[in-house]
Parts: sequence; C-alpha cells; structure tokens
Amino acid sequence: PDLDAGTAALQRERQLTKPAGALGRLEEIAQWMATWQGQHPAEVRRPRVAVFAGNHGVAARGVSAYPAAVTAQMVQNFQNGGAAVNQLCEVADADLRVYELDLDTPTADFTEGPAMGEEDCCQAMAYGMMAVETGVQLLALGEMGIGNSTAAAALCHALFGGEAKDWTGRGTGVDDEGMARKVAAVEAGLAANPQAKDDPFEALRCFGGYELAAIAGAILAARMARVPVLLDGYACTAAAAVLFKADRRALDHCMVAHRSVEPGHDHLLAAIGKEPLLDLGMRLGEGSGAALAINIVKSACACHAGMATFADAGVSTRGV
Amino acid sequence: PDLDAGTAALQRERQLTKPAGALGRLEEIAQWMATWQGQHPAEVRRPRVAVFAGNHGVAARGVSAYPAAVTAQMVQNFQNGGAAVNQLCEVADADLRVYELDLDTPTADFTEGPAMGEEDCCQAMAYGMMAVETGVQLLALGEMGIGNSTAAAALCHALFGGEAKDWTGRGTGVDDEGMARKVAAVEAGLAANPQAKDDPFEALRCFGGYELAAIAGAILAARMARVPVLLDGYACTAAAAVLFKADRRALDHCMVAHRSVEPGHDHLLAAIGKEPLLDLGMRLGEGSGAALAINIVKSACACHAGMATFADAGVSTRGV
Repeated sequence: PDLDAGTAALQRERQLTKPAGALGRLEEIAQWMATWQGQHPAEVRRPRVAVFAGNHGVAARGVSAYPAAVTAQMVQNFQNGGAAVNQLCEVADADLRVYELDLDTPTADFTEGPAMGEEDCCQAMAYGMMAVETGVQLLALGEMGIGNSTAAAALCHALFGGEAKDWTGRGTGVDDEGMARKVAAVEAGLAANPQAKDDPFEALRCFGGYELAAIAGAILAARMARVPVLLDGYACTAAAAVLFKADRRALDHCMVAHRSVEPGHDHLLAAIGKEPLLDLGMRLGEGSGAALAINIVKSACACHAGMATFADAGVSTRGV
Repeated sequence: PDLDAGTAALQRERQLTKPAGALGRLEEIAQWMATWQGQHPAEVRRPRVAVFAGNHGVAARGVSAYPAAVTAQMVQNFQNGGAAVNQLCEVADADLRVYELDLDTPTADFTEGPAMGEEDCCQAMAYGMMAVETGVQLLALGEMGIGNSTAAAALCHALFGGEAKDWTGRGTGVDDEGMARKVAAVEAGLAANPQAKDDPFEALRCFGGYELAAIAGAILAARMARVPVLLDGYACTAAAAVLFKADRRALDHCMVAHRSVEPGHDHLLAAIGKEPLLDLGMRLGEGSGAALAINIVKSACACHAGMATFADAGVSTRGV
C-alpha cells in the first residue's frame, strides 16, 4: 500500500465542495484506489474483467441444476458476446478476458480425495496471474464452472468451520433433492480430505477447482502490480478467502463488489470482514456483480479527481 | 403502464442464458423500464439528470450547517462542472440540467405560515414539468436548497404523522444545537400550518420549497411522457411522497436510486414501500445518488436486450 497516496486522497477529499462524508463509500473507494494503485488521484480508464472457467469432478454427483457441458457452452457464449457479463462490460467500458482452464479435464471428485495435485493447483494459480498485465487499473474477477458453488462450500467449510449446510445454497437453482446431494457432497469432501482443515492452500488444492485457484493467483499478482481488485460473488470470494486465511491483510487491496443471494456468501463476508458495494439480489457468477460495480469505482474516482474545492469554486464553508 | 411491453420483457427474460432470477433486481428493472417506457426492449441511450434549486425561508432559523448563499454558489458550481453530480453525469453519459427557482426569493418561513402561495406552488410544479422533454428515456431527479432537509422533515411529518424527531436528521452536518433548532422548526411548522395534515398538496404548499414542488411536477410530467424516473435521497423522495399520498400508484414509474444516511429516508421508504437500488452511505443530494444509479439501469437494459437466448447460444437448459 502507498500510504502517501492514500493520505493525499484524504486531504483532497476534505476540500471538495460537499459536506464532509457526504459521498459515503465513494470517498472510501477513492482513498482505497489511491492507496493500492500507489498514485493520487487514482484512475480507472483501463478496467479489466477476468473470468476463469474450470470443470469440477464433483459435478457428476448431481449438485447442479445444469449439466457440466454448460461450462464450455457458456465460455463460447462469452466469446460470442451473448452473456450478461459481455453486456455489463460494454456499459462499464471494460476489457473482458476469458480464461479456460482445460475444460475437457475436470478436477477429481473431491468426495474421494483431493480435487487437484499440487502441481496442477500451482499451475492454475500461475495461469491466473496472467490476467494482471501492465496498464490494467482495476481488475474485476469472476468464474464459470458448473458445480463450483459446491466446491466453494467445501472450501469455506474447511477454512472457517461451521456445518456443511451453513455454506451450501441453491447455486444455479437446484431443487431440495439437489440441495441434499450438495450438502452430502460437502460433508463427504471434508471427510475425504481431513488434512485440508486449517491449511488454506491445502484446502484450495483439495476442493479446487482450477478456476478458483486461478482467481487466488490473480489476486496475488494484482497486489504485486498495484492493481485494486473487485471480487464477484460466492465462489470468487471463497477463492479469495484462501489468501485471507493465510494472511489477514491479503485482501486489503480487494473490495467485494456485491452480496450474492447464495446464503454462504453472507457468512463468508462476515468471516473476512468485507461489506459489499452492491446488494441487488444477483447470483449469476461469471463476474457479473464485479463488472457491475466498476462504474461505482469509476464514479468515486471521477468525483474525487474532478470536483472543485471550496476555494476554487467560491463556495462558503460551514458555519452560518 | 404498458403491460404488453412488460409481459414481452418477462417472456424474453426467461429465455436468456442465465438461471431464472440470477440477475436479481436487474431483471426487475428491465421489466419496469419496458412497462413505463411502453416499449420492449427498453432503452437508456438518453438519460437526463435534472437538479432543481430553491431557497427556504426557514434557513434563517439556523437549521443548516451552511449559509443560504450556498444554494446559489452550488448552482454556479454545477454550471462550472465542479460538483459531484457533474462527474457522476459524465460517468453515466447523462445530460445534466440545472433549474433555478428564483433563488433571490426564498419561500416564506413555514414556522409562521405557508411557505408558498397557491399560485407560486403551482408555478413551481409547472416549471418542474419542463424537465421532461421528448427523447428523454430516463429521468434522474435531484435538488439543491440550503434548509430543505428541514422542509422535507416537515413535509413527511404532515404526510405520515409520527413525531418531528423521527423525520429530522443531521442534513449537511448540523451539530446538536442545530438539530434541536431543526426539530423545533418542524414542530413549529406543523403547529403553524394545521391544515397541511392529511392534505398532500396543501402540505407541499405549506412546507415547500419551490424545488420540491418542481420535483413533484417533473414526476407527474414524466408519467404522462412515459419516462421512468430515478429519485434521489431524502428531500427528493419527500417531494415524491406528496404524489404517493394523493394516489398510492402515483410512484409506480419511479424507483428510489439510493438509501440516504439521513434517518428520515428510511421511514419514508417504508411509508411509500420502495427499496432503493444503492446503499452507499451517501447524503449529498444534488441528484448524486440518482445519477449514480443510471448505470445500474443501463446495465439492466443492456443485459436484457443484448444477451443471447439458450436457443441462440446452444446452451443446455436445466436438467442434468
């Protein structure tokens, strides 16, 4: 973090033509952006949305309302411009990149042992780091992977304890029987991988998947490259939580873009101490909430950089 | 409302490449926009932010942290491009119009009788109607007026009962003594204008001000012209509430853009049954929250119009 840039933002904030604090979280965002970009004022001319896609062995257990083939079909949809995230990137004037992680080779079924080998997990993390390139000023992260809300549930359960049902939700919309299969899969996963408990990177390897490991890698690389990060919903935040468990300051350069309807997200937000920017009842994944929040960050930075000071504008300060 | 356009939106929504309901309130917005624009799909290429400015006799009672001269100074700031709303309009690619309502002539002090005469109140409403011009596809409304959170408090108290302190907050940031003066002014206002109770337009006339009457006029005109409306914070929503009290369906073409920190806003939102789109701790007024929400509406409409259907994209529907 660049505390000088953050302090410069705070000092300018106080002089802008508005009552102190009146822009609420927009003020917090402007200071956060300066601190983590290491420049004042911060800029968001080049935001990127990175969506990672992977397949999950556990999907064969009937934990999703959709077949696993949908992961690749949706990647094609992203490439053709037909998904929600494409439209959201257009409104945010953001560069969309989609990263496929060997969709023909799902992770192993974690109810029977680790989803990934150590090397595969590290490779996926390294792959995710590629999303951070010079010039990117804000990175919005998302995922696509049929079955990954089950993987996220197992990951959170291993990281933060509680019970399997606390972390398991309807995902894309499973029925009651599907929910029961999800909870059972999470419980079986924890039982099959007891070493994952209280070891964050081992939990990531055991429950995966590749796209979640890639997200963790992208968050690490963004920190090194001074790129602030917007996290999407449950699966994306679960991947980020691996880093939080390893170091409580590891997500200070990240904001959570939105509160997912997926009930595990609320527990997870409480565990990592983050308050989302948006709460619009969304639960789509594919980076949709993160992409939607880009214009909030742009707005915060535009206000901070573009507003007149009381002195410049000849506006009277407080005191009748 | 054009129910055919709304039904067409609902039917298309079901075919788009996402789980049903996964875009949450973005789906609600797309249907609402189609219903009130009377076209499917709805469009937001030409959004407008209209900010109305007026001065208040009650400001002389020391109810604001800022002198009344700030109203005109801030209007100048809007015209010079230095205010928050200017930057927010740029990010939203929205047309900003600022309407001054005779700033040299404040309303009468409502603690001594009606703030406005009937003719003045009607003229202000008619002036507000001018903000709605052919081609505007979404109207975001805001206000500027030193003292108007006190006017809004008196107005809400007259419309919805309760106690003066329920509707009175810190506004631009008054201290405890200022708060006591605000509560006293609201109580005195209600006592001086007993006929305002349970008569919505009389309440508007008695507590004003001109900019609040103009907002009520703009909302009415927007309904006639098939322009959906985004309401800003407390003062703006209070003006809208006059119409709600006259007819409970009168605000169906309006959404509340954000939840203000001003505590009266929460009570008011409950009274009119609206859930805001954003909750970012803002309390600036000048249309800032409404301008910020424009990109949410744009995003909703872009997803709705631009996404592929399951059939188009060759994505498998539910069912493993």
